[in-house]
Amino acid sequence: MAGNSFGQLFRLTTFGESHGVAIGGVLDGCPAGVDLDIEKIQSELNRRKPGQSAIVTQRKEPDVVEIYSGVFEGKTTGTPIGFAIHNTNQKSKDYSHIKDSYRPSHADYVYDKKYGFRDYRGGGRSSARETASRVVAGAIAKQFLDNIKINAFVCQVGDMKLEKDYRDLDFSKIESNPVRCPDPEMAQNMEDYIKAIKKEGDTIGGVITCVVQNVPIGLGEPVFDKLHANLGKAMLSINAVKGFEYGSGFEGVKMKGSQHNDAYNPDGTTITNRSGGIQGGVSNGMDIYFNVAFKPVATVLQGYETINKEGEKVTAQGKGRHDPCVVPRAVPIVEAMTALVLADHVLLARSNKI
Amino acid sequence: MAGNSFGQLFRLTTFGESHGVAIGGVLDGCPAGVDLDIEKIQSELNRRKPGQSAIVTQRKEPDVVEIYSGVFEGKTTGTPIGFAIHNTNQKSKDYSHIKDSYRPSHADYVYDKKYGFRDYRGGGRSSARETASRVVAGAIAKQFLDNIKINAFVCQVGDMKLEKDYRDLDFSKIESNPVRCPDPEMAQNMEDYIKAIKKEGDTIGGVITCVVQNVPIGLGEPVFDKLHANLGKAMLSINAVKGFEYGSGFEGVKMKGSQHNDAYNPDGTTITNRSGGIQGGVSNGMDIYFNVAFKPVATVLQGYETINKEGEKVTAQGKGRHDPCVVPRAVPIVEAMTALVLADHVLLARSNKI
Amino acid sequence: MAGNSFGQLFRLTTFGESHGVAIGGVLDGCPAGVDLDIEKIQSELNRRKPGQSAIVTQRKEPDVVEIYSGVFEGKTTGTPIGFAIHNTNQKSKDYSHIKDSYRPSHADYVYDKKYGFRDYRGGGRSSARETASRVVAGAIAKQFLDNIKINAFVCQVGDMKLEKDYRDLDFSKIESNPVRCPDPEMAQNMEDYIKAIKKEGDTIGGVITCVVQNVPIGLGEPVFDKLHANLGKAMLSINAVKGFEYGSGFEGVKMKGSQHNDAYNPDGTTITNRSGGIQGGVSNGMDIYFNVAFKPVATVLQGYETINKEGEKVTAQGKGRHDPCVVPRAVPIVEAMTALVLADHVLLARSNKI
Amino acid sequence: MAGNSFGQLFRLTTFGESHGVAIGGVLDGCPAGVDLDIEKIQSELNRRKPGQSAIVTQRKEPDVVEIYSGVFEGKTTGTPIGFAIHNTNQKSKDYSHIKDSYRPSHADYVYDKKYGFRDYRGGGRSSARETASRVVAGAIAKQFLDNIKINAFVCQVGDMKLEKDYRDLDFSKIESNPVRCPDPEMAQNMEDYIKAIKKEGDTIGGVITCVVQNVPIGLGEPVFDKLHANLGKAMLSINAVKGFEYGSGFEGVKMKGSQHNDAYNPDGTTITNRSGGIQGGVSNGMDIYFNVAFKPVATVLQGYETINKEGEKVTAQGKGRHDPCVVPRAVPIVEAMTALVLADHVLLARSNKI
Repeated sequence: MAGNSFGQLFRLTTFGESHGVAIGGVLDGCPAGVDLDIEKIQSELNRRKPGQSAIVTQRKEPDVVEIYSGVFEGKTTGTPIGFAIHNTNQKSKDYSHIKDSYRPSHADYVYDKKYGFRDYRGGGRSSARETASRVVAGAIAKQFLDNIKINAFVCQVGDMKLEKDYRDLDFSKIESNPVRCPDPEMAQNMEDYIKAIKKEGDTIGGVITCVVQNVPIGLGEPVFDKLHANLGKAMLSINAVKGFEYGSGFEGVKMKGSQHNDAYNPDGTTITNRSGGIQGGVSNGMDIYFNVAFKPVATVLQGYETINKEGEKVTAQGKGRHDPCVVPRAVPIVEAMTALVLADHVLLARSNKI
Repeated sequence: MAGNSFGQLFRLTTFGESHGVAIGGVLDGCPAGVDLDIEKIQSELNRRKPGQSAIVTQRKEPDVVEIYSGVFEGKTTGTPIGFAIHNTNQKSKDYSHIKDSYRPSHADYVYDKKYGFRDYRGGGRSSARETASRVVAGAIAKQFLDNIKINAFVCQVGDMKLEKDYRDLDFSKIESNPVRCPDPEMAQNMEDYIKAIKKEGDTIGGVITCVVQNVPIGLGEPVFDKLHANLGKAMLSINAVKGFEYGSGFEGVKMKGSQHNDAYNPDGTTITNRSGGIQGGVSNGMDIYFNVAFKPVATVLQGYETINKEGEKVTAQGKGRHDPCVVPRAVPIVEAMTALVLADHVLLARSNKI
Repeated sequence: MAGNSFGQLFRLTTFGESHGVAIGGVLDGCPAGVDLDIEKIQSELNRRKPGQSAIVTQRKEPDVVEIYSGVFEGKTTGTPIGFAIHNTNQKSKDYSHIKDSYRPSHADYVYDKKYGFRDYRGGGRSSARETASRVVAGAIAKQFLDNIKINAFVCQVGDMKLEKDYRDLDFSKIESNPVRCPDPEMAQNMEDYIKAIKKEGDTIGGVITCVVQNVPIGLGEPVFDKLHANLGKAMLSINAVKGFEYGSGFEGVKMKGSQHNDAYNPDGTTITNRSGGIQGGVSNGMDIYFNVAFKPVATVLQGYETINKEGEKVTAQGKGRHDPCVVPRAVPIVEAMTALVLADHVLLARSNKI
Repeated sequence: MAGNSFGQLFRLTTFGESHGVAIGGVLDGCPAGVDLDIEKIQSELNRRKPGQSAIVTQRKEPDVVEIYSGVFEGKTTGTPIGFAIHNTNQKSKDYSHIKDSYRPSHADYVYDKKYGFRDYRGGGRSSARETASRVVAGAIAKQFLDNIKINAFVCQVGDMKLEKDYRDLDFSKIESNPVRCPDPEMAQNMEDYIKAIKKEGDTIGGVITCVVQNVPIGLGEPVFDKLHANLGKAMLSINAVKGFEYGSGFEGVKMKGSQHNDAYNPDGTTITNRSGGIQGGVSNGMDIYFNVAFKPVATVLQGYETINKEGEKVTAQGKGRHDPCVVPRAVPIVEAMTALVLADHVLLARSNKI
C-alpha cells in the first residue's frame, strides 16, 4: 500500500502538505478506555513547535490540534481517532523560487520523477511538517503505554559528543535547555555551536539517544517484526535520519563474544546490557536504548548552483525560516515514533499465548 | 500479524525451526514470466551454507531447496512459489544441555517468557538457520530485478576495517576468499584473525557494506515506507544485526549542510553521493550503499555461568559447531534481503502515476 | 488491525461518529495526475444526503466535504487525500433515551460489551453516517476509474421486485425518481409503498443491483482476493446489508452445468454471462453485476420493550428522524464501495506481469 | 499484496497447483500452547478427499499432510506452522486437451490474459485442489477455537431444498450420508438426484448452511472488518461460490422493521435471531448462521464448443474425473474458512480494551 500508514494494530495514517489546508491523521486501534488528556497532546506538539527558542526555525505556526472523533467523556472509545492541525502560516511566496528548480539533497527531484509533478510549496508532503501528526499520535500512544517511560535527548551535535553513560544522566534536565541535552555544560556548548552555525547561514547534523524503561518482557514478533527492526524502521522514516543502532551498536562489532554476552542475574535481569533490552528481537525487560543519526538540514541560507526541470544549470539562494540543526526539535518526534512502535507491539503480544 | 512475512506486494512468508522437519517459505506476488534458473537459487544457498571454509561452522547441511509450485516450463507463473529445505543433520543431542538453562544473549529466555515454552533444539525458530529461506526468496528476487546489481561484502571484522571507498574496490574479488572481502590483503588479515579467534573458542563481530547499482529512480513510498526505512528494517531483522546506516550515515552528522549537500549535474545525477542514492525516501538513480553491523556470535565454546528455568545459577559449556564470525556467511543474506526490498518497491512504484 | 481501513493499494481509512466534531477519512494510494472535480464529489454526497426527498430521513445535514491535502492545481499529487465533513446538526438530546438501554437489532449492546462503554449519541461509530466518508472516497475512485461505468439502482423494496433484465433498463432514469429505480412505473409503486410504511412508523428492507461496465480483463487476485470476494466484503461492510450474490447467484444453484456455462465468442466475450463478468475470481471483460440485500431499518417509530444496562426490562419509544427504507440513499454507497474495490484491483493488477 | 494470504493475526498463506510437486501453506499467528491432534487434521482432510463416495470425483489422491514446523511435543509453539501435501496422482495427460483451448466458465481464459500464460494442467492454481490447504489450516483453527462449535451441511441441491429450521436438525447425522445433509430422507433424495445428474455427464449446484454455536460476544471489527463481512469474503473466496447471506438474508428484505427486530431477554440474549448472531458487525453471543451458494461445476463430461488461444472455434470433450455436485465435499471447506475467520477475530478482539 502507499506508505502513509504505520503500525499493524495500533496504526497511524497521516495526511497533509506543509502548505495545504491542514495536516493530520487517523489513529486506528487504540484500545477503548484510555483516559486521554488532550493538554498532554498539545504540550508534546509544543515541544516540536517552530519558534520555541533562538536555535530553531523562527516560523510562527501555532500547531493547535483538533480531535475529531474516537474520544468520549475523556476516554478513548476504541474507534478511530481522527485529528487535524490547520496550516495557518503558509507563506507560499517564500517558496516560489523552488517551483522550477531542484534544491540539492531535498526530495524535489525524485518527487517530480516519481509522481510526474509535485506540490512544490515548502516541500509539500516531503516537509518535516508532516511529523507533527506523528507527535499527536505518539502523545496518545504514550498515554496508552502509561508505565513505560520513554526519554530521548540530544547526545551529539556535529562532532560535539556527550560521552557519558545514559545511566549517569538526569533525564529531568532534558527540557531545561533549548538543545534538549541533559548535561547542562554540554548543552550550553552545543547551543553556542548551533548559534554560530546559524550565523554562517549553515546547518549541522546530530545524534539523538532514546531510552525506554519499564518495558514488559515479550514485545517483538520474530522473525521479521523484531522489536528493534520496527524501531529502526520507525526512526529511519523520520526526515533527515541516516542511521540507527541499538545496544552495543556499531561499537559492539569490535568486541569478542565472551566480552559482549550479557550474563544473567537469578531474577532474569542481566548484569550488563549490551543487548540493549532486546534479545532475538524480543524485549527482555531491561532498558531499551538506541541512537539515531540526523544529517545536517539541506536548506542552507547561502547561494548554490543547481538544475531546473529542463536540466539547465541555475543559481539559487536558500531562503525561508529553517532550523540550523534539526535534533532539538526531533527529540519529541523520536519519542513519538518509539511510543507508536511499543504500543503496536503491546497489542501484537496479546495474541501470543492461548 | 505474526512477524513471519516480509514485503507488501513481493511478499515472503517463512517457516521452520533449525531442528524440525524442514524450513521453507512461500514467495507470493512475484510477477509471471520471470525466467527462473533454479541452479542460481541453489548457488546462492551454497554461499550461505555451513562447512564452506575453515572459518565458518563445520556443520554439514546440504541445504537442497525443493520448489513446490509457482514455476512452469522454466518461468514463474504469477502464483505463489512454495519451497522447502529439509533438515538432514539435526544433532539434537548437541543441544540437550540448553533445554533447561538460558544461554546468555540468546533468545532462549525471552521465547520462554513470550510463548510459555520453546522448541529448545538448536535455537528453534530463533536460529539463523531460518535465513536460508530468505536466501532462496532473495535469489528469485534477484532474477526478477535483473538489471539491478547488488553486491555486499565484508568491510570490517573486529576493529580491522577496510577504509577504501567502495568505488575503488573490485567486486569480482568478493567471492575469491572465504571472508568475502574484495581487498585481497585485508581479506587475508581478516581470515587470519578469525582463525585466531576461533582457536580461542571465542567469536568476533563485523560490518557488511552493500552496494546497489542501476537502481531506477522513484523507488520508495513516503512517508513511512521510505526506501531506506524498509532496507533498514530488512537488515535489522537479520540475526545478530545491531545497526544500520546509509549514505553518509553516522559520520554525516559531523558535516555542515553546505558540505553535505549533493550538487546536481545537468542530467539529474549528483556530483557527490552522500545521500546514498536516496533522497526524501525515494531512490534518485545514484548508487545505494549502506553498512550493517553484526555483533559477535553469542555461542562461545567456553564455560560460562547462567541461570535455569527456576532462576538457579548453573554453569554450562558452549558446545556444537558454530561460526566464530558471522559476517562471511551473512553476505548472501544481506544481498537477499536487499533484493526482496527492492523487488517489493519496484512493484509498489508501479501504481504511483495514472 | 482495527477495522477502519479498506483496500490494499487504493486504501481508505475512515473516522468519525454521528455526533462527534466531524467525520472523514484519508484516501491513500490514489495515483498522481488524476484530474479531480471537487463538485462531482459533493454531488455524490448530495445523492446520499438526508432530506433529499419525502421518503428519506428529514434530518438536515449539509454534508459539505473539505479536502485537506493530496490535491494541487486540480490534480491528485499521489500523496494521501485527507478530508472531513463537520457535523452540524447534532441533536444529541434526541438520543438521551438510549443512553442506558439497548435498541433491538442495533449495535448498542455489542459495543458496550466489546469496548466496555460507548458513545451512545446517535449510534456513534455504528451509525450509517460513517458511510458519507465512503461516498467521498468512492467519488474520487470513480474519477480515477474514468472509463469504467458503475450504476447501482433499487430493484426490490419489500416483496415488490423488478423482474426485468438489467440490459432492458435505462440507467439514465435512475436519478429521475426518489427511489432510484430505473423503471418509472415500479419506482412509483415503490415510492407509494415506502410512504405507507413511513406512515405506520415502520420500515422495510430492499435490494440494490449494481452493474459495472467496461471492466478491463484481469482484475482480481486469486485465491483469496478474488474480485467478487472483495466486492462481497465491501457490500457486507455497509450498514444493514444481509446478503450478496453475483452473476447467477442463489438462483444459479438450480441449474445444470451444461446450462450454466457461458460459451465463448471468437473475441473472448461470452454469449451468456451467468458468470457475472468474473471467472476464477478474475474479471473477464463482461459486465459485472451483483445484488445486495438490505434488512429493514431497525429504528421504528413505535413503542417497544427492551433491556437496560442492568438487564432490567424497560419500555422505550423510537424517536428521531430515520429512513423508512434505506435502499434509496444506499445506492451511492454501493457505487462508492464498488469503485473503491475496482480502483484497488486496478492498482493490484499492475504488478502481475514482468 | 498478491491474494494468497487470508487473515490478519491468524493468517494462512497457501501455495500450490493441482499438478505441481506439492500444495501446502504456512499458518502464522496461531498462539503457542494449543494441544494439536494431527489425526484430527488428517480426518478433516479425509472429509474433503476425492473418492470418498459414489457421488464425488473418483480421483485417487491420498492427501496426506506433512507438518514441517511450529509444533513441538504435541503443542503449537507460536511460530509459523508450515505444511505440505504432495501431489501423487497427477494424470497430466488427462488435461493436454485444454492446453490450447479455454474451457467455458473456467479460469483458463482470464489466467492467460492476466499472467500472459498459465500452468494448464488440471486448472493449475485455479483448481479447487488448493482448498485442501485451507482444510488443514482450518482444522488447526478448530482446535484453537475449542469451545466454539462449527457445523456446516448441505441444505439444497438443484431445486431440492431442505426447508427445516436448523434448530430442528440433528447435526450428528451430517456425516451419516455421502451428501452431508442431516435430514436422512432429504439426503437420500439428494443422493439419488446427484447420481442421475452424474449419469448424464452433467453437474448441479447447491447450497451449504453453516451454523456456529458458543460464540463469544464481541468478535468483529467495525466498520470494514465486520464479522459477517469477513465471513462473506471467506466464503466467496471458495471456488464456485456465487452468493452469501446471513441471518434473515435475502428473505429478510421483505419484512418490516417491527417484525424483523430481535427483542432482548433480560440476560442479553434475543428471543428471535434474525440478526444471525451478529449486530453492527459484532457477534452478540447468539448462533451465527449463514448460507453459501455454489454454482454447478463447470466441467461437464459432454462435448462442447469453445475457442482456442488464436480465437478460433474448436470443439472439445469434457474428460477427467470430476464432481457432479461440489457441495458434499465443500462442507469441510466451508467449516475450515469459518474457523479461520473466527480464530482471526478472536485474536483481533484481544486488543479492544485496555
